[in-house]
Order: sequence, then C-alpha cells, then structure tokens
Amino acid sequence: MHWKVNEVTTSLRVALLGCGVVGSAVAARLQQHRDDFTARVGAPLDIVGVAVRDLDRPRPESGLDPSLFTTDAEELVTRADLVVELMGGIEPARGLLRRAMEHGASVVTANKALLGEDGPELYEVAEKQDVDLYYEAAVAGAVPLVRPLRESLAGDTVHRVMGIVNGTTNFILDKMDRTGADLESTLKEAQELGYAEADPTADVEGLDARAKAAIIASIAFHTRVRTPDVYCEGIMGVTPDDIRAARKIGCVIKLLAICERTADPRGALGVNVRVHPALVPRTHPLATVHDAFNAVFVEAELAGELMFYGQGAGGVPTSSAVLGDLVQAARHKVRGGRGPGESAYLALDVHGIGSATTGYFIRMDVQDRPGVLGQVAGVIAAQGVSIESIRQGLKRSEGGLATLHLVTHPATDAALARTVDRLRAHEDVASVASVLRVEGL
Amino acid sequence: MHWKVNEVTTSLRVALLGCGVVGSAVAARLQQHRDDFTARVGAPLDIVGVAVRDLDRPRPESGLDPSLFTTDAEELVTRADLVVELMGGIEPARGLLRRAMEHGASVVTANKALLGEDGPELYEVAEKQDVDLYYEAAVAGAVPLVRPLRESLAGDTVHRVMGIVNGTTNFILDKMDRTGADLESTLKEAQELGYAEADPTADVEGLDARAKAAIIASIAFHTRVRTPDVYCEGIMGVTPDDIRAARKIGCVIKLLAICERTADPRGALGVNVRVHPALVPRTHPLATVHDAFNAVFVEAELAGELMFYGQGAGGVPTSSAVLGDLVQAARHKVRGGRGPGESAYLALDVHGIGSATTGYFIRMDVQDRPGVLGQVAGVIAAQGVSIESIRQGLKRSEGGLATLHLVTHPATDAALARTVDRLRAHEDVASVASVLRVEGL
Repeated sequence: MHWKVNEVTTSLRVALLGCGVVGSAVAARLQQHRDDFTARVGAPLDIVGVAVRDLDRPRPESGLDPSLFTTDAEELVTRADLVVELMGGIEPARGLLRRAMEHGASVVTANKALLGEDGPELYEVAEKQDVDLYYEAAVAGAVPLVRPLRESLAGDTVHRVMGIVNGTTNFILDKMDRTGADLESTLKEAQELGYAEADPTADVEGLDARAKAAIIASIAFHTRVRTPDVYCEGIMGVTPDDIRAARKIGCVIKLLAICERTADPRGALGVNVRVHPALVPRTHPLATVHDAFNAVFVEAELAGELMFYGQGAGGVPTSSAVLGDLVQAARHKVRGGRGPGESAYLALDVHGIGSATTGYFIRMDVQDRPGVLGQVAGVIAAQGVSIESIRQGLKRSEGGLATLHLVTHPATDAALARTVDRLRAHEDVASVASVLRVEGL
Repeated sequence: MHWKVNEVTTSLRVALLGCGVVGSAVAARLQQHRDDFTARVGAPLDIVGVAVRDLDRPRPESGLDPSLFTTDAEELVTRADLVVELMGGIEPARGLLRRAMEHGASVVTANKALLGEDGPELYEVAEKQDVDLYYEAAVAGAVPLVRPLRESLAGDTVHRVMGIVNGTTNFILDKMDRTGADLESTLKEAQELGYAEADPTADVEGLDARAKAAIIASIAFHTRVRTPDVYCEGIMGVTPDDIRAARKIGCVIKLLAICERTADPRGALGVNVRVHPALVPRTHPLATVHDAFNAVFVEAELAGELMFYGQGAGGVPTSSAVLGDLVQAARHKVRGGRGPGESAYLALDVHGIGSATTGYFIRMDVQDRPGVLGQVAGVIAAQGVSIESIRQGLKRSEGGLATLHLVTHPATDAALARTVDRLRAHEDVASVASVLRVEGL
C-alpha cells in the first residue's frame, strides 16, 4: 500500500499532557506496538515529551525515557503534531489545548469536565485552525459512542440516548441490588476495590455523568448543551428499601444519563438532558449491565434501537479510545484532510426538568383504613396523572399504617412533582418515603 | 461555521444504483431532510440519477421524479461525485463501482457478497483513485460495526469478534426456542412475516453470515479474508430436540459468525473465521438477542469486551448506515482528505476449521448398562479431550438405550471430530444424534 505523505515526511511528534494510569497505558502501548502504529498511520508516532507536575515521581509503567518528562507543558505543545491531554480539570488543560491547536497540532482529550463546560469554544478553535479535536475517551471510556453518534448516525435523526455512563455508581447500585447492603458500606467496599475514589463526590453526586450527558446531547442532537444545562440527581438518596421495593415490581435501580429531543408545553422543539437514578424493568437490556460496565441505548429515527456496551473506566480500557482517536488524527496529518468537526446547526433550546416525561415510582405510608387507596388514586387523577399500578404491602407498618407502592404512567415531571406535593399534604398520607423516576417501561 | 469548499463549489451529485427497499428509503430521506444533509455535509446532496433494471416499475415510495430513473448505469456513474450501490450481486455491481471510482466518485455499498469475494481489488482501486469506499451497511445492517472496528479500535488489537449477524436465522432459532416448533414450519412463518425470503438459501445455509464474517475479519485483524476462506455450516440441521437439549443445560442455539486470531498446531499466527450454529449459555449477552436483531461481541486487548446491538436488516434501518457513510464521504469531498482505507499490513494466514478451539455438545444414544458412562468417558479422554459435563437422560429410549448429553471443554475441532468418529464406532454407542459446538462458556 502506498501512502501519500502530506505535511509530514518522517515521523509524527506526539506530546502527552499528564502521565497517570491512562497516560502511562498510552505511552507504553505506543512504544511496544510501534510498528503496528506506523503501519496503521502511515508514519511512525514518536513521543517527544510528557508534561507532568512532579518530575521526581517514578513512572516505570510508562516505559518512557526519563529525559522525556518536563514540567514545561506550554513549551511542549508548540513542538508536537499531536497532543494528548490526560490531565483533567479546567485549567491549565483548556489553555494548553487551545495553544496546541493554535500551533497546528491536532488534539485528543479525555477531559469530560472541560468539554462539558467549554467544549464549544474549543471546537471553534479546532475548526478555525483546521485541526482535529477528538474525545472518544471522555464519554463511556472504551465504548465507541462519540464516533458512532457523530459519523455512523450522521444521516439519521437521533431521538433519545439513555445510558449508564458512570461505572462507579453502577458498581455500587448493582452491588446493593445483589447484597441488600446500604449505600455507605457499599461505597466503602467500592473504594477498597479501587472502583471509587477517596473523594467519590463527582461519581455519587452524578457530576461525572452530568458532564458526559452534556457532551452526548451536543453530538447527538447537533446542538450545544453545557454541563450546567443538565438536571442532575446523584445516588446518595437511594436506600436498600428502594432497591427492595424496585425488585418487588420487577425493576432494578440504575443511575441514568438521558438525552431527549422534546417539545416544551407550548410545543417548541428542544432538548431535555438529565441524570438521575431511575427504576428500569429487569427485562430491559440496561438492567443486565453489571459491575462497573457502561451501556448506552440510542433511539434513532431510521436505525431504530442501538446499544453500545463495554468498559467505561480504567486506565487500560480508556487508553484504547485515546489511541483510536490518536490514530485517526495522525492519519489525517499524513494523508490530508481532517475529521468532521462538531455540528451545532440546530441550536435547540434546552428545556428544564419540568417538561421531561417519565413515570414515577412512589413509596408511601398511608392510614390503614378502608377507602384510602381510592383517596390516593383520586389525588393523583386530579393532577392529570394516570396510575400504572398500585399495590398495598402485605406487612403493615407500625402505628396502623399501610405501605403503598405506586407506579404512574409517564407524565411531565412538573405534573408528577405537583402530585407528590398533594400526596404529602393529604390527611390519609402519613409520609412519602421515596420518589424515583421510572424509565424504559 | 465556515466550510472550506474543496473541489465542489455548489452541490454534490449523488447517483443511486438500485432502488429497492433500501434505495427507496435512502432517496426519500435525502429529499425530505435536504436541509439537514446540507448542514451536516457543508453542501447540498442532489440525486442526479437512479439506475434500475425496469423503468416501468412504479417507485412512489422513493419520492423521486420519474425522469431521474435510467437503465444506463454505466453512463450515470461517470457524472456523480458520490455513488451508492444497492443492487447486490457480483456483476454488474463490481464493474460499476470500479468505473465510478475511476471517474473520481467516492462509493458507498451494502454489497456483502461482492466485498466478501472481491473486496481487496476494490479497496486497491479506492486507494489508487484517492476516493472513499464505505460499506457500513454490508455488515449487521444499522449497527455501527465497520467504523468502530476500523477507526475506534485502530489503536488496539482485536483478538476475537463473535456475533449474530443474520437476522433471519436469529428470528427462526429464537422462535423455535420459544415455541418448540420445528425448523420447516418456523421458516414458513418467517417467510410469511417477511423475515425470510422466498428462497431462503443465503440465510439458512449461513452464506450471508459467511460473507459478513470475511469482511469483519479483514477489518478487525488488518488482513485479507475472503468468503471462501470462511468455514460455514447453516442451521438446516438444527432440530427441536437440539433446542430442548440445549435448554436443559442452560443454553440457547444461535447462528454465530466467529473471527479469531489463532495459532496453528505449529504455533504460526493466523486467523480462524467460521459460521455455524452453536450453544450459548443463557447468561451470555448474545443469548438475549431476540427476533431479527443482530449483536456483535468484540474482544480487544486494551478495550476488553465490547458489544454492539441493533437491527441487522430491513430497508429503513439499513438506510441509516448507508446515509451515515454517504455523509462522511460527502464531507471529504467538501473539505478534502478521505477516510482511512483498508489496512491489510498483517497478511495473516487463514487457518482451517481443524485448528479452531471450541467446546462440543454431543447428544447420543448408548446401551443402557452399567459401566457405559465410563466407557464413553474413556473414548473421549483417549483423544485428549476433557469432559465438562455428562448427564444421562431420565427417560430411557426404546430398545434398552439411554440418552447421554455431553459437553466437552474447549479443544481443537480436529480432536473433537476424531472423538466423534471414535464414539460412533464404539460398540456401546447406538447412535450420535447430534453434535453442536459450544461458545461463550
């Protein structure tokens, strides 16, 4: 096969920013499989420098010559054809990516926080500089999702994306479902096993999934969604009682990222993007996603239902996505052209959570006397919400109370929130113990 | 967003070859969503002609002006920037694609038969002419698989691809599993419902899956595999007894396409590519693929396990894959460059079925007398094959015979074939009713 060499006659210069677990895996692979990369790209990929904060920390797993490490990232990005950013965080990553592109480098990043906040500005720099900005690793780790949404589905219309995009919370919820244990002890176990970080806030509060949801929605709907546009609830409120109750009605609880094309109450088209725990029927493919795996369901007008499944985190799996992007960007450096940029031509409005349409699962304690079920049903009907099922627990709680488990048909979140307010205020309702959304019915 | 216009200043000329269900769906979409395509590509896509065999057949579903239809495909392909081939078959499709590329057009095809037979020659023409040759729709319909293998996993090493890539046979086997009906009546039902063609040979004999397996293996392993290199068994021999027996040991029968990097008995690296029915544990994700859906499992060194799931056939779903390819090829026409060509730098040997490593499920009738189980076990051990489980049916068959269900641990197909020969020849074995491979244990 004959390669046409454009711009580059010898090797391509690769700079790494950050050398943690993903960076080390990327560096090691590039060196160990140098010939494969050369054949696939059409030119050798040479690591010309690795920017780190602490030069003294040994990084034997990267296999890199110590002379390649530098603390001067600003200088490094000006002498590379390809820059791989794996530092995370907003600054200095943002400035460095911008500087790299302004010096003509194509960039690959796994930085979901940065893209969720400031993706649009960076996409514009890439467009202006005619370089690639790739970020498959920022969403769902090793699972190819960004490229299929942006390229494979480029001739289709995506209506909905619903997925498990955070491995830590899936590990915790899956474990709670299997063992019946509470969240705190399960989180501790996840930390001991390395599935959760010492500070688990970004995962358990849903912030990681939130940034990913913003990125997914932007690509899927050809629009701009930023992290603050995404409604977000974490999993800290999920109790063993919720999980048991979900099981009783054939469901499991998952933290979902949901991106939908919707219409607001006045019929204006827009998008609704949200992250929250939800009941999912055990027969739904997402219910069978265990441990720290990720899976994303896509509903498109022509393609119908698609699902993508794989490892959503971990240094080695994530390095696969980074390296795939690196090879694409490098091929463009060798052969000319560049990949499709971000397209935001639709510029859809972002609608609030109130217009989102879901089912609700409500667990409550009510007075144990005849007619109470009808009273409750009346409160719900008065809000225009339709009941899918209602069942009274066999075991009565203390103080003459009965437990009700109620599932509504899909309705707007606003109507459901009003319904819950009315239930809480009703004299026959002692307490509303739990309210969770239901998806995938 | 500012588009740099390369080569093309106004619209891009699209020619369709063939206007059946997929072609009509492609044509209708291009017209109905013209503005979306313009925004996504950077230039309008204009259908300049549609080559058909019979000009008199009405095609209202395509929405096309009748003046666009022509029988002169040879001429049509010389006046298009993009040619979409949906005729199927080897000729005239091969000659037309070649001619289109030689006239500078990028081409999109769903023609698995042609690519399985003659892909390498066509890839070389694309390379030489510096045009795109895309074919996502040739494998697994709407499921993005070609692009993820070729691009997302370009920095990884794929070890194995195992999937359900033929919707018709999955519909039949799934139905047989649910109803207990035999193959003939289920096939008839599939034909009535439109899931199987009047002549179902290509599907039920595994020929469709065989061509797809050749294409998948070529991309996944950076080598050249052609359809005749692929070992192939269809589903015509699968009986309700097999399905019942599979169920008893917690398995379901699926027609699988399997592509593996292997070593032959002398240790030489190569690939093994095969299509055959196999028992799959019901806990395996592929076991949960129902109806005419497709799903493909990919095992890569860095990414680990990935799965891709969706609709593998049907005019509208397939049009999604065709249109995605068309948008990519069109973007390259507008912005310069082209997508990655096929890479076959590894040129691996194709190993025969004998070196494939699988488990076997063997159902046989044996003499119902003490010691026979030990005799059978001895025959198997003598071939160096290890037994995973062996169970004797509760219900004795007629003539003093007992039914044995036996599952071996994985061994080479050659050793297992020898084992079955020895069993058939053994005096205690009345008959070997069925032999099926076992995958995904």
